[in-house]
Amino acid sequence: MTRLQDVYPDNKIILREVGLRDGLQLVKKFPSTAAKQRWIRDEYAAGVRHFEVGSFLPAKTFPQFTDVREVIATIASLPGAYGIALTLNERGVNEALASGVAEVATVVSATEEHSQANANRSRESAIANVKRLCELRDATVHKPVVNAAISMALGCSIVGAVDPNEVIRIAEKLFEAGVDMVAVADTVGYAGPKQVGELTAAVVKIAGPKPVCIHLHDTRGMGIANASAALDAGARVLDGSLGGLGGCPFAPGATGNVVFEDLVFLCESKGFATGIDINKLVAVRSILKSEMPDEQLYGGMARAGLPCGTAARVA
Amino acid sequence: MTRLQDVYPDNKIILREVGLRDGLQLVKKFPSTAAKQRWIRDEYAAGVRHFEVGSFLPAKTFPQFTDVREVIATIASLPGAYGIALTLNERGVNEALASGVAEVATVVSATEEHSQANANRSRESAIANVKRLCELRDATVHKPVVNAAISMALGCSIVGAVDPNEVIRIAEKLFEAGVDMVAVADTVGYAGPKQVGELTAAVVKIAGPKPVCIHLHDTRGMGIANASAALDAGARVLDGSLGGLGGCPFAPGATGNVVFEDLVFLCESKGFATGIDINKLVAVRSILKSEMPDEQLYGGMARAGLPCGTAARVA
Repeated sequence: MTRLQDVYPDNKIILREVGLRDGLQLVKKFPSTAAKQRWIRDEYAAGVRHFEVGSFLPAKTFPQFTDVREVIATIASLPGAYGIALTLNERGVNEALASGVAEVATVVSATEEHSQANANRSRESAIANVKRLCELRDATVHKPVVNAAISMALGCSIVGAVDPNEVIRIAEKLFEAGVDMVAVADTVGYAGPKQVGELTAAVVKIAGPKPVCIHLHDTRGMGIANASAALDAGARVLDGSLGGLGGCPFAPGATGNVVFEDLVFLCESKGFATGIDINKLVAVRSILKSEMPDEQLYGGMARAGLPCGTAARVA
Repeated sequence: MTRLQDVYPDNKIILREVGLRDGLQLVKKFPSTAAKQRWIRDEYAAGVRHFEVGSFLPAKTFPQFTDVREVIATIASLPGAYGIALTLNERGVNEALASGVAEVATVVSATEEHSQANANRSRESAIANVKRLCELRDATVHKPVVNAAISMALGCSIVGAVDPNEVIRIAEKLFEAGVDMVAVADTVGYAGPKQVGELTAAVVKIAGPKPVCIHLHDTRGMGIANASAALDAGARVLDGSLGGLGGCPFAPGATGNVVFEDLVFLCESKGFATGIDINKLVAVRSILKSEMPDEQLYGGMARAGLPCGTAARVA
């Protein structure tokens, strides 16, 4: 049985690599299964323990994730590593639960307009599905972590500004439905640090002892500043992708997730030990470069390296 | 006579374009005088009022600044615009004072090692030069603002970590010497937001009613997060360069100043009105691109634009 306290110890900052799922969402050419496995093993050697690795979605639409079970098995073979898989419907939920993955993630839109346009269902119906997912989890032996992300929580590609009270209301309903944690997602990289800090503080408050994940995109260059504000506001789980891999279907030209290696530097500079070796992490970019030569990678640490005199500062 | 309160009103955030000086410090090919003038006029039309435009340094070493007097004259022709020129020795100081520029900037290193290596003089001698600059200013009719920057204030390319108490001590001595303001410079982009926030708060405290400028480089991707922390800590003057133009001689591959247009978005998102139109500002990048096609420009706003529904949010 998966114990939440093992996966997300409450005295530690957890940085999750989501490049293998969110980062690959839009790429034209994607890494081979062997390359994904090297990517995971090399990041594991650098100290990374949490990997979002794929989704249980139709293989025809998302061929990049047809190897999700093999990748989950790779992670299961690494002591203390946790895999996360995304699901959007009951078929996917059942497959994810059967795969033995440590964490099953799902998504509810913050706005009714985006929920209808993107998932062709109401938010209420999406929350009912999350409740069903939690019931199915309870019926399993290994009881994976269930994490419900609130997409567009800080700004919506359809309606623009989002009322934070709506997000808080949805988070409350998700906890009532039985989720182990929620994720607050700035899906289109809409927000600045003030907004991120305020919403994070509010959701952390209603989450009580349960973890709150902050999922940020660097669309407008605010990613690291927003992560810093989220940490100040009490978030202890943050997503990033190596090299900031990944685009955004709603913002042409936008970058993807916040840059993972810069996120590690941010945390260490704020006094939060991550257990991740930045130099080893940066070296893993070579796998992405050779597998996806057309994808633009971002990040300051890869350009400049650790500051002089601090090589020993980071684990 | 230049009134400090006119140049830096104490109820307003001031963002300064330093691309025409710091941004051009290392470029191989630099813009023509006419292009610099277009750059200034177009940014002025976007709402920018403070421009660091060049330095009074030997023309042989820095041919990019031989037109500094013409550029200063361009700015003087724009109502409410202020030019800033850098000086490092008494000849330069005299030329800058004679040029009528609104602000004369100079630099003191935070560490003795960097002061000796970079300027071949002690910090004490550099502070004595600042005192002399203030005396020369007092003897002029127009009395420009004197701004002394403390370089390497958050990390040094030679010794690594810098004791914040040393920086505070230097800032105190600079105010005693008669400067109108100090700038705290993360010259090599060494710091994270915690360090920037703490040092900013300390220097703002000793500055009292005088402005404190925070000068950041985005070397390791922390630029916007550091700017956000500086604003939270009470800084009201921040430097940036369009497209993050400029490298750093001490960190190969490093980017330059924090991206100006992203800095505007940050401030607006935090509720600080900048008076700057981001879309007009982003459009000015075309001048940089055509004049310096080999320089890499950075920034999220240029890639993604304003978030949907916020076009009217920013002036």
